[in-house]
Amino acid sequence: MNATTQVAKWDIFEFEAKADVPGNPYLDTEIWGVFSQGNRQIRVPGFYDGDGSFKVRFSPDQTGNWSVTTQSDVADLDGKTANFTVTEAREGVHGPVGVRNKFHFAYADGTPYAPFTTTCYAWTHQPVEMQEQTLKSLECGAFNKMRMCVFPKHYPYNQNDPLHDVYAVKPDGKYDPDQPNFEAFQHFENQIARLGALGIEADVIIFHPYDRWGHCRWTEEQDYRYLRYLVARIAAYRNVWWSLANEYDFMLDVKPMSRWHRFFSIIEEGDPSRHPKSIHQGYIENSYDHRKPWVAHASIQHFQTTDTAKWRADYGKPIVNDEMHYEGDIVQCWGSITAETLVHRFWMTVMKGGYAGHGETYSHPQDLLWWAKGGELRGQSAERIAFLRGIVEEDATNGLTPFEEIDGLQAWPSLGAARDGDVTYIYLAEHRPLTWTLGLPQDDGTNWEVDIIDTWNMTITPAKRVEAHVPVAIKHAEKTVGGKADAGFGVELPGKPNLCVRVRRKRA
Amino acid sequence: MNATTQVAKWDIFEFEAKADVPGNPYLDTEIWGVFSQGNRQIRVPGFYDGDGSFKVRFSPDQTGNWSVTTQSDVADLDGKTANFTVTEAREGVHGPVGVRNKFHFAYADGTPYAPFTTTCYAWTHQPVEMQEQTLKSLECGAFNKMRMCVFPKHYPYNQNDPLHDVYAVKPDGKYDPDQPNFEAFQHFENQIARLGALGIEADVIIFHPYDRWGHCRWTEEQDYRYLRYLVARIAAYRNVWWSLANEYDFMLDVKPMSRWHRFFSIIEEGDPSRHPKSIHQGYIENSYDHRKPWVAHASIQHFQTTDTAKWRADYGKPIVNDEMHYEGDIVQCWGSITAETLVHRFWMTVMKGGYAGHGETYSHPQDLLWWAKGGELRGQSAERIAFLRGIVEEDATNGLTPFEEIDGLQAWPSLGAARDGDVTYIYLAEHRPLTWTLGLPQDDGTNWEVDIIDTWNMTITPAKRVEAHVPVAIKHAEKTVGGKADAGFGVELPGKPNLCVRVRRKRA
Repeated sequence: MNATTQVAKWDIFEFEAKADVPGNPYLDTEIWGVFSQGNRQIRVPGFYDGDGSFKVRFSPDQTGNWSVTTQSDVADLDGKTANFTVTEAREGVHGPVGVRNKFHFAYADGTPYAPFTTTCYAWTHQPVEMQEQTLKSLECGAFNKMRMCVFPKHYPYNQNDPLHDVYAVKPDGKYDPDQPNFEAFQHFENQIARLGALGIEADVIIFHPYDRWGHCRWTEEQDYRYLRYLVARIAAYRNVWWSLANEYDFMLDVKPMSRWHRFFSIIEEGDPSRHPKSIHQGYIENSYDHRKPWVAHASIQHFQTTDTAKWRADYGKPIVNDEMHYEGDIVQCWGSITAETLVHRFWMTVMKGGYAGHGETYSHPQDLLWWAKGGELRGQSAERIAFLRGIVEEDATNGLTPFEEIDGLQAWPSLGAARDGDVTYIYLAEHRPLTWTLGLPQDDGTNWEVDIIDTWNMTITPAKRVEAHVPVAIKHAEKTVGGKADAGFGVELPGKPNLCVRVRRKRA
Repeated sequence: MNATTQVAKWDIFEFEAKADVPGNPYLDTEIWGVFSQGNRQIRVPGFYDGDGSFKVRFSPDQTGNWSVTTQSDVADLDGKTANFTVTEAREGVHGPVGVRNKFHFAYADGTPYAPFTTTCYAWTHQPVEMQEQTLKSLECGAFNKMRMCVFPKHYPYNQNDPLHDVYAVKPDGKYDPDQPNFEAFQHFENQIARLGALGIEADVIIFHPYDRWGHCRWTEEQDYRYLRYLVARIAAYRNVWWSLANEYDFMLDVKPMSRWHRFFSIIEEGDPSRHPKSIHQGYIENSYDHRKPWVAHASIQHFQTTDTAKWRADYGKPIVNDEMHYEGDIVQCWGSITAETLVHRFWMTVMKGGYAGHGETYSHPQDLLWWAKGGELRGQSAERIAFLRGIVEEDATNGLTPFEEIDGLQAWPSLGAARDGDVTYIYLAEHRPLTWTLGLPQDDGTNWEVDIIDTWNMTITPAKRVEAHVPVAIKHAEKTVGGKADAGFGVELPGKPNLCVRVRRKRA
């Protein structure tokens, strides 16, 4: 190391120390790095990477001069130091994502981040060529977050052996929880980095129940050690998110609730970047208590996307509906919906102030289903999700607030209607009125541009204005119900479903 | 009257007494009829019908010899008697409907009754020709229950004056709560009878908030008097149902909750046939407590029909979703859904063990919308509801139990899947798997006929059997989730949404 080592802000500074340590360093040897800038100190866990190599990784969040000093009970690993200089972030690098404005996200540099998730649980465990194909498919621009598992997957349509076993395999076919396969972890984190280069966050699923390797039944100590190790290895990747589990409730018999609580704190202990943490359930009635302070956002699995505003109210956090069923044709209900339905659920979720997840599960003679293995996108929803993403990103400022929460704008819950600054969206879903007024500006409309978005055909057309001739509010006995009465004008609609009315203040 | 007067069972025996009573008999004069067969006595309230005429109506539920004796403080109305003979019910007359098997309905003679509701709130208040058109339209066979208001309706698209004012109109345009218009009531009950002749139950909406005549603000005493009067007049019509209100929660400011409770007991006091009673809300969060013992069934207004099984669990009573939004194109969300969506919601509701309601709200230059005025059916859902009704009636025995409640048949909640005796329906909604196995028989299928029902195109096609090659149940750690694994066979599906798989034991 020398004083001229340079690293860009939010990239990774890696410090390596070599030592010949007897026994199993994975079990017995700790190394820490204390990173300093002036009086500021950040203590970061390191990890053993095999072959006598110990590493500490750090993602600096400030430019300028930094130093690191190691701590360890092993003399050869203790008190090592290095200096390095952190330069400005590279073009397109915005830092790790965090929660902003209660229900939304932003990168560390303040750039809004609206997750558009896809799911290829075991893509890093497929043959290398297929992984390349997955990365190629992701260039479609629909997605900026990927749900992906550390462990390989054993499940219908997923019987093939992984590219790399994550731990050494014992004669009985089970993983040896004391023997990580360093090559597997190196590959996994390399693929996280490649996603990062594409602008895609890696929503890393730490535990899952689709298991023939026995990791589901690891002891508390084995679980904690694995988790500490994983966090030490990958927390410095700026695009990491922590998803404690897929369907954690299907493992409660072997990993009790107390352990899930503890997992959250173990991550906090080792992750100075404080990446978003969540936990995904199988049945909605088994949801983890997402209100707990260590949960960054509620990871939901439910098809009833009109409930998104309710979940916001329940949890007071960003809602990320990771599974709303997938576009496909397999026998399982979660994998057999039409592209039309999935696109509708994306719009509904986003236009109720939440965030949505995609997957594809089309039957394939070699069981090559995107949802688990990546590869090729074969469906019709991805390009329409890219269209939605473009619309959202064009005007994102603080994030969308659904009409349910906007004072005086009582909405029908079957609409996806929301506002962000001076942009309002009214997604009409299965409704196809001939005119529309609810939520339109109360002036004469001169200063607003109003467009009709066809969510399926991906067109945006200026709306024809009409008189707001139908009263929206109804006065009963003493009550007024049904919405604000005083929209200043209406718009004509073509009488078909799945349209969205967009209202924006005219730009100078 | 003479001893040979005959009336068929469940028709109406009407006893009339004349008296010249001073003052306002509507306010001051009571008459009761005590109907006797052997030692059995049923005391029934009578009513004043104008012009010195007092009537008591009775719908006998047993054949044989009956007598009636009147009771009144007015000497000319007291102690009058008559004998009559009740003959067998006429062809096609099955008696009043009641709850059977907890979640379902049947006529008094045991014939299953599955309500298929439509809504023409103010049809009896339209010009006579239009009322004839409504009755003609109802011959389409889609519907066997009609939601209809006693009072006329003041609301968007409903500004015309009623055919008959229900009470005398005062100079300020408001109804005089002391002066019923006997002709209006006679017309109303005549139309109930005409629906009855078509096999259609009249779901009579007693109070509603769409009011320019002031009945919303009547006092407690005025409300109770009106209700007693209405019950005395129409309870003997075998096809009456009591819907205490449309959107009762929009009147809570003028009719407090205690009054709604009391309304139920007033009906019970005057209705020996015990017709079904319910109460309809505007916002689901304002629902009346349908668990109360005097509520026969839960009248729901909500579009999220996948919640039907939840409502069954919540209330333990028949679920009648009277408003799931209407087929139409008006600006209000409750009146702008596609026919496809409404047909889907009918199937979903019915195949989750509930009952559903229809309405049509297509814009019309003269504001002739079926939902309020009747007239012509212009949409595409009615004939498809008739198709569904035919399927349900063909195999109805005890009523449908959703998979959610069938032991061991864990279902995905997005399906509408249910069983009644040896018939199983699996409505796949937005799912379009290429094969299906869940809920199919566990034997080799020899004794079952399996059909694919296309709910939109109204076709029924024998299914092609295939091997049940995809496991439905998934074993995690220690848990099995995702449904019963051991279906004996599968069926091939054409890969499109809104299909229903029907399995029936082969008939001899």
